[in-house]
Order: sequence, then C-alpha cells, then structure tokens
Amino acid sequence: MKVLVIGGTGTIGKAVVAELKSDHEVIVAGYRGGDVQVDIESSGSIEAMYQQVKGLDAIVMTTGKVEFAALEDMSEKQYQLGLRNKLMGQINVVLSGIKQLNDKGSFTLTSGILNQEVIPMGSSVAMVNGAIDSFVKAAATEMPRGLRINSVSPTVVLESMDVYGDYFKGFEPIPAAKAALAYRKSIDNLLTGQTFKVGY
Amino acid sequence: MKVLVIGGTGTIGKAVVAELKSDHEVIVAGYRGGDVQVDIESSGSIEAMYQQVKGLDAIVMTTGKVEFAALEDMSEKQYQLGLRNKLMGQINVVLSGIKQLNDKGSFTLTSGILNQEVIPMGSSVAMVNGAIDSFVKAAATEMPRGLRINSVSPTVVLESMDVYGDYFKGFEPIPAAKAALAYRKSIDNLLTGQTFKVGY
Repeated sequence: MKVLVIGGTGTIGKAVVAELKSDHEVIVAGYRGGDVQVDIESSGSIEAMYQQVKGLDAIVMTTGKVEFAALEDMSEKQYQLGLRNKLMGQINVVLSGIKQLNDKGSFTLTSGILNQEVIPMGSSVAMVNGAIDSFVKAAATEMPRGLRINSVSPTVVLESMDVYGDYFKGFEPIPAAKAALAYRKSIDNLLTGQTFKVGY
Repeated sequence: MKVLVIGGTGTIGKAVVAELKSDHEVIVAGYRGGDVQVDIESSGSIEAMYQQVKGLDAIVMTTGKVEFAALEDMSEKQYQLGLRNKLMGQINVVLSGIKQLNDKGSFTLTSGILNQEVIPMGSSVAMVNGAIDSFVKAAATEMPRGLRINSVSPTVVLESMDVYGDYFKGFEPIPAAKAALAYRKSIDNLLTGQTFKVGY
C-alpha cells in the first residue's frame, strides 16, 4: 500500500513510519521536514500536498496542536487553537482526501487518552479528542467507495515524557512503537468508525 | 434557586422552564424572546446578558445550532457553524459564567444522542456533541468554589418530530417534559462532570 503519514517527522509519526516501512510505501508529510510539506491549518496547503502525492491507499495523521491551561485562565482564543489545528486540521485532511484515496482506502486520525481520563489544564484537549472520536464514528457511516476512517487514542508515550510528563502524573507511559501498532491495525484490517485505545 | 435558562423559549427550554418554575425562580434568555436577550455566538452579548442577571445559582443551556449535510457535501465553513454556535457558544457562557454563579452553583449544557447513535448527515452534530460531553467531564475537575457542570444528552423529542423526524428514522421520540427532568437532575443534585442521557 501507498501510505501518507502527516506528522511523520514527530515522535509518534516516526514510530508509525518505522512500523509500516517494511511492507508499505511510506510518504512522510511534515510542517518543515519530510518528503512533502503541509500546514494542516490551511486548506490551500492541504490541497497543494495532495497535488504532490497521488494514488494513496491510506492517510495517517499523527499531528495536532492544542492549548493546555487552567480552565479559569482559558479564553475563547485559546480553545480556537485546538479547534483550528488538531480538530479541523485533521478533518480538512479527510474532506479533501476523500477524492484522493483509492477505493477501500483508509484515514487514521489521532485523538488521545485525555477525554477518557482527564487532567488539570486539559479542558481543550478533552474537547478536541472527544470531537475527533465522535466525528470518526459518524463519518465512517457516510464514506463512499468502501473508504474507512478510524482514530487512534494513545496514552502518553515514553519518548515524550520529558515534555509532557508533568501533565501526565500517574499515567504509565508506553513506547511510541506500541502506539504505532494501532495505526497498523487501522490500516491493515477492515474495521471502520473505531477508536483504537492504546496503553489504557 | 435562581436559574437562568438560555434557550428557554425553545422546545426543550420551555419544558425545562415548566419543570423548574414550581420551586425555582426562573429567568429565560432567548435570541429574540424571553426576559433577556442573548446571542451565544457573541462574547459581548453574553457579557451584556450577565450584566442584567445577577446572583445566579444555576445556568442551563438548551440552545445551539449545527449544520446537517452529507459528509461529501460538508465544507469547513459548515462545520464552523456548530463549532461557533452550539460548542463555543455554550463554552463561552461557561467561561464568563464562572464569575457569575453563586458558590456551589451549576452549569447544565445540552449535547444530544447523535454522537452515541450516529445518523446520515450527522458528522457535524456528532463532533460537537462529543466535544461538549468531553469538555464537561474535564471542566468539572477544575471548577472553583464548588461549582458543578454537567451535560444533558436527549434523544429527539416528540414536539420536534415535525422538523427533525426525517433525520431520526427509527428513533423513539420522548416528550420534552421527560428530557426536562434530566436538567432538574443536574441542578438539584450534586453530581458533576456527568452526561445525563435521556430516552436511550
């Protein structure tokens, strides 16, 4: 299969690329690095990316920014980052990507544990993750040409504990390679409308 | 208790007002009608509403617009209606309302069944409902002064079947008065961070 990994330059993305490359043709899209560049906040940038990569069988997204702050410090503007980037960024990749995927192709989005097990400063990420998992469930039922769509919802990964460890107190981190298996599960099997939880 | 019902002029809102008025002081906020007017899409309008209603013990929201269309016809702009109105409209009422509620007061938001049981043309409402239920779960853990926050997730109500019946094929409608009980449950009891499902 020909697989596009958007965010394939990041921590989880690199592990997904490593997992898939033995038996799939993998193209990496990154904000700066990778084989092709994309800013998922921009529909124009997403369209430009699709002009450069054709004949895809699977599109994986391991990217998305969200603001972390205490509820009483959060402004509407701070919620907008998560809505614009992690949520609508991934959804716009899907909306434009429906025409790009080969028949029976798949989308795999990334949500995360923080709507299932909430943390302080996590009201925006909870909201966004809940939105993604629900979108996937609904969108799966309306996909044309046998296309599928799932989300992967990992807990924190070991390789990110230096950055996120203070947020995930009491959470058992998993290797990114373990999270990567869930993306393969979504791509290489036939389930759709699912959220694959990893590490919890 | 002094209770503000935003959307109290609508189908479910009227039933909530009827349910509460026997033993609570109820103030109705509507887009046009009601005791006070508010456009939940506008932070300025929300602030102006709070200038007119003081000393609240509970704030109920039974309002929110979302676009219904087939997945392949949905544009980013159409998703934005639900994000701006039903999602961020309710969240902005909460963000500004934290300073307005008396100690131990409560917020009750409205999501709905359509992220639990999805329908054609429902990818936006699923996304928004999932976001609301997850936000409530996270925000509850960070509320100051014993404030509480829940959502009510009703199935379609009988009184709306002329408008929404075609979307809810095979769903058993409930009287709005039954949905109204869930709002009372949220207001008059002590649970927080919950989604009260009604009719399913």
